Amino acid sequence: MSDGVEWGVHVCTLLAGLPDDAALPAAKLAEYHGVPAAYLAKHLQALAGAGVLRTVKGAKGGYRLAKPPADITVLDVVEAIDGAESAFRCTEIRRRGPLALPAREYTKLCGIHRTFNRADEAWRNELARTTIADLFLGLLQDVPRTSLEKGARWLQESAR
Amino acid sequence: MSDGVEWGVHVCTLLAGLPDDAALPAAKLAEYHGVPAAYLAKHLQALAGAGVLRTVKGAKGGYRLAKPPADITVLDVVEAIDGAESAFRCTEIRRRGPLALPAREYTKLCGIHRTFNRADEAWRNELARTTIADLFLGLLQDVPRTSLEKGARWLQESAR
Repeated sequence: MSDGVEWGVHVCTLLAGLPDDAALPAAKLAEYHGVPAAYLAKHLQALAGAGVLRTVKGAKGGYRLAKPPADITVLDVVEAIDGAESAFRCTEIRRRGPLALPAREYTKLCGIHRTFNRADEAWRNELARTTIADLFLGLLQDVPRTSLEKGARWLQESAR
Repeated sequence: MSDGVEWGVHVCTLLAGLPDDAALPAAKLAEYHGVPAAYLAKHLQALAGAGVLRTVKGAKGGYRLAKPPADITVLDVVEAIDGAESAFRCTEIRRRGPLALPAREYTKLCGIHRTFNRADEAWRNELARTTIADLFLGLLQDVPRTSLEKGARWLQESAR
């Protein structure tokens, strides 16, 4: 899984704290998370392309969530950035070697591949169960109050 | 996930078809699966190191399962080859940027990290539910009879 997944989920969780009509410039998102702006930009565009973020153009431009945070799951962010492919790489080695069969015999997915597909589904189901709203509310509980106030001030000064 | 995982699970499933006291040379395992012997050797050693395979020394040397196939799960093979680390890479970006807190404030795992840990656990639980015996029995059902007979002959000729 790429670094971008961690960044993307953090970005969305931060944007959940923005007022409805505001946006945060990409440079501010990079500054807040201490990550290279050029590399983060790529992931922000992927998130916008997948309908997780909305791009706001113009002088007041930047990014905001495209939907209410309760309607965005962690899986949405993961799939926007890393795609929907399973981590398991099946190269169909069953078709190689001295006992390989003619291609027409392989009508069914290999049992090994099916096992990894079930595991991948369990992984995705779990990530689909947590929303950006859950993570934002968790943050409000976990982070010390003085730090939340500092964060709120930063957001207010940085938002457009 | 590395290619080695696919290879390792296939190797264990094939070895489940060996008689109890027999072993298969590494070169035969590579030939059967049509994969480079030198690269497969690395994974076979990892599987032996993790107690999934047993190395048989001498003229009748090779590899066999170290335990009954019903006692080896797909997760055992995955962890022997790829380790037990989660696919999610947490670089603790919450500690960077202008709002970072002193290190002592981060007493609890970040909510985002916890979410990915739950997903990883669901993935591992699913892989721990399938054993090499399950995969071997599945193979006996899925593969055409003539091909099974060919496979059995190949095993008999190749086993030591």
